[in-house]
Amino acid sequence: MSLREFDLHATIRAANDALPSHVVIPPGDDLAMINLGGHNLLAGVDHVIPGRHCRVDASPEVIGRKAMLRSLSDVAAMAARPVGSLASAALPPGTSGAWAEALHSALAATGLEFGAPLIGGDLAILPSSSSVPVISVTVLAVPALPNDRVVSRDGAAPGDVLAVTGRLGGSLETDGGGRHLDFPPRINEAIELATILGDGLSAMLDVSDGVGSDARQLIASARRDVRIAIDASAVPTNAGRSWKQALSDGEDYELLFTASKPPPEMVCGVPITVIGYVAEALDQTPPVVAIDSGMEIDVESFGWEHRS
Amino acid sequence: MSLREFDLHATIRAANDALPSHVVIPPGDDLAMINLGGHNLLAGVDHVIPGRHCRVDASPEVIGRKAMLRSLSDVAAMAARPVGSLASAALPPGTSGAWAEALHSALAATGLEFGAPLIGGDLAILPSSSSVPVISVTVLAVPALPNDRVVSRDGAAPGDVLAVTGRLGGSLETDGGGRHLDFPPRINEAIELATILGDGLSAMLDVSDGVGSDARQLIASARRDVRIAIDASAVPTNAGRSWKQALSDGEDYELLFTASKPPPEMVCGVPITVIGYVAEALDQTPPVVAIDSGMEIDVESFGWEHRS
Repeated sequence: MSLREFDLHATIRAANDALPSHVVIPPGDDLAMINLGGHNLLAGVDHVIPGRHCRVDASPEVIGRKAMLRSLSDVAAMAARPVGSLASAALPPGTSGAWAEALHSALAATGLEFGAPLIGGDLAILPSSSSVPVISVTVLAVPALPNDRVVSRDGAAPGDVLAVTGRLGGSLETDGGGRHLDFPPRINEAIELATILGDGLSAMLDVSDGVGSDARQLIASARRDVRIAIDASAVPTNAGRSWKQALSDGEDYELLFTASKPPPEMVCGVPITVIGYVAEALDQTPPVVAIDSGMEIDVESFGWEHRS
Repeated sequence: MSLREFDLHATIRAANDALPSHVVIPPGDDLAMINLGGHNLLAGVDHVIPGRHCRVDASPEVIGRKAMLRSLSDVAAMAARPVGSLASAALPPGTSGAWAEALHSALAATGLEFGAPLIGGDLAILPSSSSVPVISVTVLAVPALPNDRVVSRDGAAPGDVLAVTGRLGGSLETDGGGRHLDFPPRINEAIELATILGDGLSAMLDVSDGVGSDARQLIASARRDVRIAIDASAVPTNAGRSWKQALSDGEDYELLFTASKPPPEMVCGVPITVIGYVAEALDQTPPVVAIDSGMEIDVESFGWEHRS
């Protein structure tokens, strides 16, 4: 079994049975949640590695900002509110102190900007100068909705609509650096959405791998056996991108959600577009299809690569 | 400024002024503490990198266990109680899935063993197979003492004794793997110590760089200008190690603390040894001296390297 074939999520799920009862939402969602004496706390961790998640020669300012934003986007996906963050950085021995300082500064400033002050950090020097920097950010959050409700990934049900915030596609294009490097985590949008829709907001995640792949995550996490159909003509694309690209490009960091009632047209000034629906799973039918001019196309055929 | 000269702690301290008021203990101690609606939460992050913190060919079981134990030792140093953990692993592309699974298993089992279930993880594949694995663990904890008291590093005062749990030195020796790879985090010992000594336990940390270096941390963190004198003949050494080695070897993961009253001789079956005292700082006197046969020796002369 190669590392690419290794299914961390399946391994984590298998270990979830052993978790103590104070783990309210086990790992596998955007964030996990634990209950501490009646108070709920959410937490999650994510990497940024130059050469994988940004250019290998990206500046420390770009790396630090993206690393913090990625974790904050996971907070948005739960409709929670960030309260703190911790970062670890393993840097090649030839890195300058100024580079490390700029990285810390970008992490701290971006965390502070969104209510997640950097409260911990560890800096390690890698043994070899041929290694690339490895940055990981842990984010801490608290529920933002009444009764400590958060929005997990597991509630998609037949009859729900599938919708997305903003526009999709082309985030990885490097003209101007690419939106994937500096995007607004949809924290307030998620909270407003959950407030308006209430329990009608059945499942949500943030678009990291691309809507086609992330829709499959909603299906894999769902408590019921469901499939998803996407209306190709409804997909809100960024300029110059086709709907196919919009579904497969990834790293949009928009909210993808299912709802049992019609969502608002806009939250916090960001447009919301219904792009499909959830139905009962059918044998012989791919889990996620795009419908284009009446034809059903398996979105897996578009291809994408999980940039873990 | 090289990476080795870069002072992360100073950079963190400089940024602490900007932190919001819910950050009760800012970064710079073993763990930071934030207050969430009246509940206090502690958190910190630490690395393990093969080739720096263990042999470059260490097994995933050894790496995962050490990574979790290091973070748990920081919880002990605050006299707090662990409640959860998150881990990130960036692995070379040639790593097998079985290796990744064994790493996850070691992290999860060790966390669970000490009350810190693994609630989050991220696995990233490094761009180059020449890189070494990079593992970081974030630990979450809650206060374990009445009135949410925790023990920080900053309270050493003239007249306090300096004491240590267990024995020191030789942890990095590789016969049998080395104690630095598998040690008991002194969680219960720290809580019992703090319960017995009350406010008399003025400052505490865990011995990572070696008592000589860590004693300097107690001085650097102290609110008062203090120095520390260590009685060479009192240092509890592991078999085959001299007192000089015991002060400079590092990675003992024992508790080093100052107290304004005599500590108990034992907590949870682990011996406690008074090895010195805290005094007012004096010009022209090194911050940490060892007294051997009446001679004062600057412990900096023993040399050590910070294995950050």
